[in-house]
Amino acid sequence: MEKLYEGKAKVVYATDEPQVLRIHFKDDATAFDGAKRGSIGGKGYCNAHISAYAFRYLEKAGIPTHFLELRPPNEMLARRVRILPVEVVMRNIAAGSLSARLGIEEGTDLPFALLEHFYKNDALHDPLICEEHIRILGLATGEQIAEVNGMAREVNQHLSSFFSACGLILVDFKLEFGLDSGGRVLLADEVSPDTCRLWDKETRTKLDKDRFRRDLGKVEEAYQEVLRRVRGVHG
Amino acid sequence: MEKLYEGKAKVVYATDEPQVLRIHFKDDATAFDGAKRGSIGGKGYCNAHISAYAFRYLEKAGIPTHFLELRPPNEMLARRVRILPVEVVMRNIAAGSLSARLGIEEGTDLPFALLEHFYKNDALHDPLICEEHIRILGLATGEQIAEVNGMAREVNQHLSSFFSACGLILVDFKLEFGLDSGGRVLLADEVSPDTCRLWDKETRTKLDKDRFRRDLGKVEEAYQEVLRRVRGVHG
Repeated sequence: MEKLYEGKAKVVYATDEPQVLRIHFKDDATAFDGAKRGSIGGKGYCNAHISAYAFRYLEKAGIPTHFLELRPPNEMLARRVRILPVEVVMRNIAAGSLSARLGIEEGTDLPFALLEHFYKNDALHDPLICEEHIRILGLATGEQIAEVNGMAREVNQHLSSFFSACGLILVDFKLEFGLDSGGRVLLADEVSPDTCRLWDKETRTKLDKDRFRRDLGKVEEAYQEVLRRVRGVHG
Repeated sequence: MEKLYEGKAKVVYATDEPQVLRIHFKDDATAFDGAKRGSIGGKGYCNAHISAYAFRYLEKAGIPTHFLELRPPNEMLARRVRILPVEVVMRNIAAGSLSARLGIEEGTDLPFALLEHFYKNDALHDPLICEEHIRILGLATGEQIAEVNGMAREVNQHLSSFFSACGLILVDFKLEFGLDSGGRVLLADEVSPDTCRLWDKETRTKLDKDRFRRDLGKVEEAYQEVLRRVRGVHG
């Protein structure tokens, strides 16, 4: 079937059903705005499965998502949405770009869950934006952003529990949202070690894409370990 | 008297009065986070005078400022304040870093006056922040930020009129606020072609620090021209 879109980590195909897409999770990995490229064996398999477990959990908790079903080994069927060009990052603990931008030491507990917006625009390198910028750029209506923000905060609660039950701390994560054909806001994209920082609760060992970004070794093992734990608890 | 602080464009001295500071406006000019340095003859004189006219105008309009009196040729007396480490940028027309960050062509009218916050921190290069970052960093209380934002929007109305009467478009500008000994929020810093983008209404000629930043020539003349017009109308 027709390839609709190829991103850094996924390929999206049409299906026989106009409102259903097939999403293929790749082993390709990029970091630092595409400056670093590589491949992580088994990542596509792990991310498709972890995302499926997370989306099913969120659906049960009342969050509307694009997820329909897992298509092993590394694909899922999802509702067709128009992705809003606003990425939402939720942060519970300072890490990564937040620490670099604001000088908050990595690992510092934040006094409340920080919600950030980024303009999804490769040419502009996905800059940080505030709510007034979203209105100036016309990226979403005020109603849509209010709904996105509310959902992001709820998702943070649910995913923190989801991963906590697996002995993992949800440090921060990136979400994307889309509008279905009826204009309803759905959680889209993926939930995986590519998009979530996950630290072991006891040792604070990083079990996410930072192992690739920062050349920490045992990259494939981290993705496998997250899937093993998620499947063990939520499978 | 004791030098309390030396910045890129001003020096602040103590006076015999503990709650009064003497602010000396320098001819030194810097741009691009200090990467470009130079001197603009007569800038200190022009900026002290333009700021004095602007602060008097704003005080009359009900905006509390740190301004006390002009001390020619290039100094002013001001109330001692603790400067809040949050710079406010108000934008009526897209230009400069906004155009670069978000891909909005310079000169585009914005649908409403955009209010941006930046973390005043040289080591971090004054990054853009949103209101949640201000709370996370503890830079100001929610009440103080609400007051700062309200004052910034009012100042934009008043300064737009102030410069419009001089045949100038107020494209954007940077404000700093401080707390006096009683905790009252005062408009501080300066109002000048260093901190405001000012375009001639008819020709849209730039009459501000962009002439220095972008090597447009007639830099000193631009500052003189702004002072000449401001003095002619508001003197």
